[in-house]
Amino acid sequence: MTLLSKIPRVDQGLKEALLQKINQKTKPLGSLGILESVALQVGLIQGTLDPALKEPHIIVFAADHGIAREGVSAFPREVTYQMVLNFLSGGAAINVFCKQNNIGLSIVDAGVDADFESQAALLDHKIARGTQNLLKGPAMTVEQCEQALQTGGQLVEELQEKQTNIVGFGEMGIGNTSSASLLMSRYCDLPLEDCVGKGTGLTQEQLQHKIKVLQEALSSNAVQNTDPIQVLATFGGFEIAMMTGAMLAAARLKMVILVDGFIATAACLAAFKIDPGVLDYAIFSHESAEQGHKKMLRYLGVRGLLQLDLRLGEGSGCAVAYPIVRSAVDFLNHMASFTSAGVSNSPS
Amino acid sequence: MTLLSKIPRVDQGLKEALLQKINQKTKPLGSLGILESVALQVGLIQGTLDPALKEPHIIVFAADHGIAREGVSAFPREVTYQMVLNFLSGGAAINVFCKQNNIGLSIVDAGVDADFESQAALLDHKIARGTQNLLKGPAMTVEQCEQALQTGGQLVEELQEKQTNIVGFGEMGIGNTSSASLLMSRYCDLPLEDCVGKGTGLTQEQLQHKIKVLQEALSSNAVQNTDPIQVLATFGGFEIAMMTGAMLAAARLKMVILVDGFIATAACLAAFKIDPGVLDYAIFSHESAEQGHKKMLRYLGVRGLLQLDLRLGEGSGCAVAYPIVRSAVDFLNHMASFTSAGVSNSPS
Repeated sequence: MTLLSKIPRVDQGLKEALLQKINQKTKPLGSLGILESVALQVGLIQGTLDPALKEPHIIVFAADHGIAREGVSAFPREVTYQMVLNFLSGGAAINVFCKQNNIGLSIVDAGVDADFESQAALLDHKIARGTQNLLKGPAMTVEQCEQALQTGGQLVEELQEKQTNIVGFGEMGIGNTSSASLLMSRYCDLPLEDCVGKGTGLTQEQLQHKIKVLQEALSSNAVQNTDPIQVLATFGGFEIAMMTGAMLAAARLKMVILVDGFIATAACLAAFKIDPGVLDYAIFSHESAEQGHKKMLRYLGVRGLLQLDLRLGEGSGCAVAYPIVRSAVDFLNHMASFTSAGVSNSPS
Repeated sequence: MTLLSKIPRVDQGLKEALLQKINQKTKPLGSLGILESVALQVGLIQGTLDPALKEPHIIVFAADHGIAREGVSAFPREVTYQMVLNFLSGGAAINVFCKQNNIGLSIVDAGVDADFESQAALLDHKIARGTQNLLKGPAMTVEQCEQALQTGGQLVEELQEKQTNIVGFGEMGIGNTSSASLLMSRYCDLPLEDCVGKGTGLTQEQLQHKIKVLQEALSSNAVQNTDPIQVLATFGGFEIAMMTGAMLAAARLKMVILVDGFIATAACLAAFKIDPGVLDYAIFSHESAEQGHKKMLRYLGVRGLLQLDLRLGEGSGCAVAYPIVRSAVDFLNHMASFTSAGVSNSPS
């Protein structure tokens, strides 16, 4: 499977039969709202009237960012490394939510600026010890970007071999809202002010500084190139590029993709620019409190399942939203129909 | 325990300690958004820094409505009875979602206009075979209303004896959005047009007819009485009054209450008018597509967890939202703190 192999579009031929199955359930027409749209989407992705969610899994990609040295984050750079250790010992939010909902979890070092002791549970795919400082040129080379895309894809292929057919992606990387904002501004052709938010908790003054730094980064990387992979290499992070590759592969393998918040959606945006077919497979788990996320979702023409003002990352929104997706699949499979239950479905 | 015993307010003395525990978790301050508010609320309800959700349970109350004879619903009156049979055989949405999330389920006949064969699984608390037609006077007598309130309370006391400390309430009753709209209009002092929606799926023309019928019902029951129980007797249904009694009892017993959609919120509104302390214990599971629901939530000064355009009733929103409440309790109990995980929590 190469980076350029095309994502198959879902077969819309099954849509009518799926809608009919949904509409025959013992409930007022349309009364399960967005759960009905999710049931339809999962049915179309799997190409069946009886979809099933198997071996749900979340991969968290961690990496550092050169731009973090410019004071664009509320937390120090070492926190990327520290949080990876926290993931590995089971103490982070994503651990708790995955355990609650029986979701498998993998942690990937995509480019953390630290050496880990040999930890069986950590998947070592470090491309470099953090990206370059965006103020001084592209974050990574195109070769590094392609390596990240490829690695993300391989990790998803391995999951599929273990029967996983629904996968969520999360990230950890101090400074990565800056990368995501630059990608959004460039891909969506939106002014930077629309794309930059407070991340992990900047003050208003720090936010102004962040915007100024990112404006400089945009100017010093003013390539006219519209190749989406080049844009990703210029402004991305290793964890973001790996997520992009993972999403593209998951779509090619016809898996259900759970997209987390602002940064994961930026990775999905990059995937969309590489192959818009990815959207057929993507369920957006929530709408984040990070300003810019809702605008990015609107640009993609989608809506997030949850509106809980989450802004944590790590894939936490995917894990919290997973039971909602299961509710959608379960009602489609297990509710009685008007006929089978002997319930009247006619105007009174 | 009498109807008039006062609901204890939660002890706000624990608030600071709970917030401190939440803020010490390895995540940016406030980044779990509404999950943090839910964790705080459950901690306050249970009066502990380590709350636990035990034996979650949903009770669905079913009853018929005299007003259903006036063409105010898209479904025929027999559907109340048919859907109770569907609940008992496990084919309804609420069965599927309770099974998915390991929630116990009880079905109560509060006043269905049919005789059930002896069904062990159905709890028989029928007050009468449906309420009276509101166009011709009050829906029920004050004595019937008090009986319903008392019965709802007893059912919750029985649950508490089985260790349940979180309980959701649902309803089934063709015509009961009409009752809920009248209660809302009267309790909130809002014009009927703000309170009436399409229920299970009326056309625009049928909606106009519904508004006209309910306007007549309001005029023919133009009591000036502001006693909340008298208002509930005049416009309520047996399932609504039983839910109101159940919510009041759950709050007195310091249980977490999951409130479903438009009709369950109307029952909660009645409970609020009887004793505003009930709100300390109530979590509103979702914001329904039924017009009027959001306005009722705003009147109560609350917000629903999910925005999925659900409008099914049966307690389905409670069951779908339950995992979100569990996520809130789980992060509070199981996430590491900055200190325990060795993660930096200082400005960079």
